[in-house]
Amino acid sequence: MNQQDSMTGRFITIEGGEGVGKSTNIQCIQERLRQAGIDFVLTREPGGTELAEKIRTLLLDCHDEPMAEMTELLLIFAARAQHLAQVIRPALAAGKWVLCDRFTDATYAYQGGGRGLSVSAIAALEHLVQQDLRPDLTYLLDLSPDVGLSRASKRAALDRFELEKIEFFERVRATYLQRAAAEPERCVVIDAGEPLAQVQAAILQHLETLI
Amino acid sequence: MNQQDSMTGRFITIEGGEGVGKSTNIQCIQERLRQAGIDFVLTREPGGTELAEKIRTLLLDCHDEPMAEMTELLLIFAARAQHLAQVIRPALAAGKWVLCDRFTDATYAYQGGGRGLSVSAIAALEHLVQQDLRPDLTYLLDLSPDVGLSRASKRAALDRFELEKIEFFERVRATYLQRAAAEPERCVVIDAGEPLAQVQAAILQHLETLI
Repeated sequence: MNQQDSMTGRFITIEGGEGVGKSTNIQCIQERLRQAGIDFVLTREPGGTELAEKIRTLLLDCHDEPMAEMTELLLIFAARAQHLAQVIRPALAAGKWVLCDRFTDATYAYQGGGRGLSVSAIAALEHLVQQDLRPDLTYLLDLSPDVGLSRASKRAALDRFELEKIEFFERVRATYLQRAAAEPERCVVIDAGEPLAQVQAAILQHLETLI
Repeated sequence: MNQQDSMTGRFITIEGGEGVGKSTNIQCIQERLRQAGIDFVLTREPGGTELAEKIRTLLLDCHDEPMAEMTELLLIFAARAQHLAQVIRPALAAGKWVLCDRFTDATYAYQGGGRGLSVSAIAALEHLVQQDLRPDLTYLLDLSPDVGLSRASKRAALDRFELEKIEFFERVRATYLQRAAAEPERCVVIDAGEPLAQVQAAILQHLETLI
């Protein structure tokens, strides 16, 4: 680790489909970071700034006209560019860690796998918006969509994505798993169907490698 | 002209900086198209659909946080993708003409020339969103920014772009003129500082080449 690296915070993302338990497990990660005295920022995508949250609202709301798939993809990266400029890059540069609920893996999974948008278009936008910035560690909470959706449906009114058919979420899950398999050093797949204590033990074990 | 072409409408865009008289001259074009019995759609960018107009509002409003330049660029293309899918492509495919107040030349002028964003990034997004679709005819209403801004400032509260400094609008103008010079078959430069009758005569003369 050179001096530059040692001065830069770590970027951790938590990924997964509907109802996989991201919030509960983010809570667990936060507690461990606090315990270790690490200064961190908790944030989410799409969103994370006032303006990016307005873009999130456009993305999640149902509209009178169908949203073009390319519009959806570009809105997601517009929100991400804002989030990076206002929150993520400044925090990392200040030595803080960033804990982010979903990031670009979700775009590959939902817009690539789910919607069928071209991976090369997503990769081009990723490069345009992030340059070389990638998470240091990504947790993929993996769960069968039928279990996850039944958990998620108990929470609140369904948003524009949650109204998709089960096949959409099967493609999302498959894409997430493919990405994790292709980048095993960055991505940790956690079986979110296991009992919570076991899930959290697995999460904390990997977190120790960064602390 | 092959059969495909003869069944497709014409795509006309009107470009120019603040206060160059786009609205008045669009009115003149509309009257001529009506007179010629041409079925056309009048629209504008950013915007042109309910959702794209919501994106326009995000773009023009002043926010508590500065909008990242890349966010601005991606929001513009997100609105454009929606506008193309919902309005422009269906109209052209149905044989209607499309008369659009600003299009991608404005992105090169404002975000490229004005903001200094890379032309290759804009070109990549143009290809991603439009593929090969380009206007058949573009009117560039050219006017010195000090004259145009003084006209525009009499109308209404200034939006996020109109609050830029004069140098910004000088760069916008220069980029517009460069683009017009590079594509003389598509772009017609109209001196918007001439008397209105003369401006409109020049506009109508070029319109006849398409009718």
